[in-house]
Amino acid sequence: MTDLNAIGARAKAAAGELAALRAPEKNAALEAMADETLACREEILSANANDVDAARAKGMAEQMLDRLTLTPARLEAMAKGMRDVAKLPDPVGKLLSGGTLDNGLRIERVSVPFGVIGIIYEARPNVTGDAAALCFKAGSACVLRGGSEAVHTNAAIVRAMRRGLGRAGRNPDAVQLIEDTSRETAQALMRLNAYLDLLIPRGGAGLIRAVVESATVPVIETGVGNCHVYVEKSADVAMAAEIVYNAKTSRPSVCNAMETLLVDAEIAEAALPVIAARLREKRVELRGCERTRRILPEAVPASEEDYAKEFLDYILAVKVVDGIDEALAHIAKYSTHHSEAIVTRDYAAAEKFARRVDSAAVYVNASTRFTDGGEFGLGAEIGISTQKLHARGPMGLEQIVTSKYIIRGEGQVRV
Amino acid sequence: MTDLNAIGARAKAAAGELAALRAPEKNAALEAMADETLACREEILSANANDVDAARAKGMAEQMLDRLTLTPARLEAMAKGMRDVAKLPDPVGKLLSGGTLDNGLRIERVSVPFGVIGIIYEARPNVTGDAAALCFKAGSACVLRGGSEAVHTNAAIVRAMRRGLGRAGRNPDAVQLIEDTSRETAQALMRLNAYLDLLIPRGGAGLIRAVVESATVPVIETGVGNCHVYVEKSADVAMAAEIVYNAKTSRPSVCNAMETLLVDAEIAEAALPVIAARLREKRVELRGCERTRRILPEAVPASEEDYAKEFLDYILAVKVVDGIDEALAHIAKYSTHHSEAIVTRDYAAAEKFARRVDSAAVYVNASTRFTDGGEFGLGAEIGISTQKLHARGPMGLEQIVTSKYIIRGEGQVRV
Repeated sequence: MTDLNAIGARAKAAAGELAALRAPEKNAALEAMADETLACREEILSANANDVDAARAKGMAEQMLDRLTLTPARLEAMAKGMRDVAKLPDPVGKLLSGGTLDNGLRIERVSVPFGVIGIIYEARPNVTGDAAALCFKAGSACVLRGGSEAVHTNAAIVRAMRRGLGRAGRNPDAVQLIEDTSRETAQALMRLNAYLDLLIPRGGAGLIRAVVESATVPVIETGVGNCHVYVEKSADVAMAAEIVYNAKTSRPSVCNAMETLLVDAEIAEAALPVIAARLREKRVELRGCERTRRILPEAVPASEEDYAKEFLDYILAVKVVDGIDEALAHIAKYSTHHSEAIVTRDYAAAEKFARRVDSAAVYVNASTRFTDGGEFGLGAEIGISTQKLHARGPMGLEQIVTSKYIIRGEGQVRV
Repeated sequence: MTDLNAIGARAKAAAGELAALRAPEKNAALEAMADETLACREEILSANANDVDAARAKGMAEQMLDRLTLTPARLEAMAKGMRDVAKLPDPVGKLLSGGTLDNGLRIERVSVPFGVIGIIYEARPNVTGDAAALCFKAGSACVLRGGSEAVHTNAAIVRAMRRGLGRAGRNPDAVQLIEDTSRETAQALMRLNAYLDLLIPRGGAGLIRAVVESATVPVIETGVGNCHVYVEKSADVAMAAEIVYNAKTSRPSVCNAMETLLVDAEIAEAALPVIAARLREKRVELRGCERTRRILPEAVPASEEDYAKEFLDYILAVKVVDGIDEALAHIAKYSTHHSEAIVTRDYAAAEKFARRVDSAAVYVNASTRFTDGGEFGLGAEIGISTQKLHARGPMGLEQIVTSKYIIRGEGQVRV
């Protein structure tokens, strides 16, 4: 088993140096990381070809193979991503609040880096570059643990980034990859409290659950999205159809895609056929309740499980509900607290839905697909938090720093 | 074993109602909780007398017995604490940030309650009233699990508070106590992810460690403070003596009390005798390094362990260091990242210490004892976070809420 203590100690030492860097120094290093990523293009693409071949030989599904594959364009996008992070404002050293106490103490709360951030993720190798760049700009060293299928690709990307760090005069240990993809090592990483300040899992529901179950390091859960769109009885049917079409089909494999459609009984006969016609263009499979199937005979019966599931595919669960309260109750029961939307023309329904739904992002008359750091104007994102602690919703640079209090006095003691 | 699922479900239902309350409604309920706490004075004090007798019979130490004991004055202070929380600004429903995106979507981030907060704590029964009042004002239901020694006291306090909630027309299940103080039930509470949004342990290092080790619910670690004061070579010796005296002896049993004194070798001969003379007034036991003991022969030899320990007593570890870098390295090694102070007249030393020390609160020329929600102007506090996630340092009402995004549009879809 890999010696995580050695990796952790190196990361902590690098984090100490990194915390003292100013923005231009960090940005120059990010540019060098991007330069080296492009300079090592051959090496990275050839490593990726090996990973893809091996995965195909093992029978990996086409959709997963696509996620694993790096093309020259995707590699360039990753390098550009690093340069984009360099252009973002530095989240470290901001004065967040402060003032003078009655006893004369000057107190300020400033943003500071976390220190060492662990990232556990699955097959997409672009996460390697994105996560490392964001952590670096946020002043933290990162310890990356990607999926076994992408290990050669990830190793080649990390070698390139570390070369860039070295060339820029920075400690390469600010970016480290754990190449040992055994379960035991992942488990040990989740409990590496002596060195890790934060752990961010990025991947499917199984990975997130495993991390939450095992980790003693503080975790930010990301990305499981069983997202709902509720078509309220006053909804504009054409708008509802466009929003559902976009939320379900524009990219079904991502966490902000919708998984369940709730339709008010009063509008179901008018709305469902229009929505279904639009979804038919993409051959979306509908799984409906009894009442749905009376209106849409092509729908297959939905099981209880279908309402709890993140399909991440061209499949949609549909349910006819009696009013907003039933919709809210259904969402409260099945939602993963990611993103939910209402389509309505009714002011009271809009406000009630916005206030009552307990999710990171709640939409009125818009697609759930907007829940994204780039769309929200945060610049790049390291993930979408579906927990309530620390950060909720898309996490950009400002969500991966912490703060401390600095208090200056002239001998004050507490009475 | 107590059915935590039933308790959790009731708490979640109460949390839903509580989230919809406006500030005056919550404040009236807090006043009613305070009223009933005073009205049940006899019942609470007699339950406490039973707890104290039982604890004394079991041989509980005097200092712990004192923490466990409720006097009429302490009970009044607890009721007053509830009224004080009623007077604090409502942390829920604040617009934290927002704006309009290029596509016309109006996005806002608003503060919302966590939902259900679990509190695991030790012998001090005043935590029962304080924590429940803060959670309630923050819009969250709480599930309390206090120490077994205080179980009758806590039950009587919670009965009174629930009576107050009922009288104010609120759901009493917003405040629940787990009277079963078995280890198994505590463990189950730590893994009650279906109902708990947050878990805050309050107590000694052992409790905190056990919770971090076992919990799958998101945790905020609180309160273990191995706090340092570093007397830099340019320090004003009289100021240093006053700060050390205050930080060590004004209340040794609390987490912001100092535990280790670091003295620069260049000022040790001048400073240590003055500091030691002041500490002698409170008969503080000194445990020093070799160099300390050459200057202060009364000091006993310090072991490695003494530097890692939170004494919470009239004991102080002392070490002579060669310059600020050795002081910073010692703090980095032994600190629990709570509060550290430097005493200096040197600008560069002050700034270096403030930037480099990785603790929740870093002081220049002031006592570590100021790390406290009340002192920092946050009103009451629910604990002092020593972790970096979510909240760092004293946690007031604003630290026990979360946020969500509300996005309003007119049919926008993502391209």
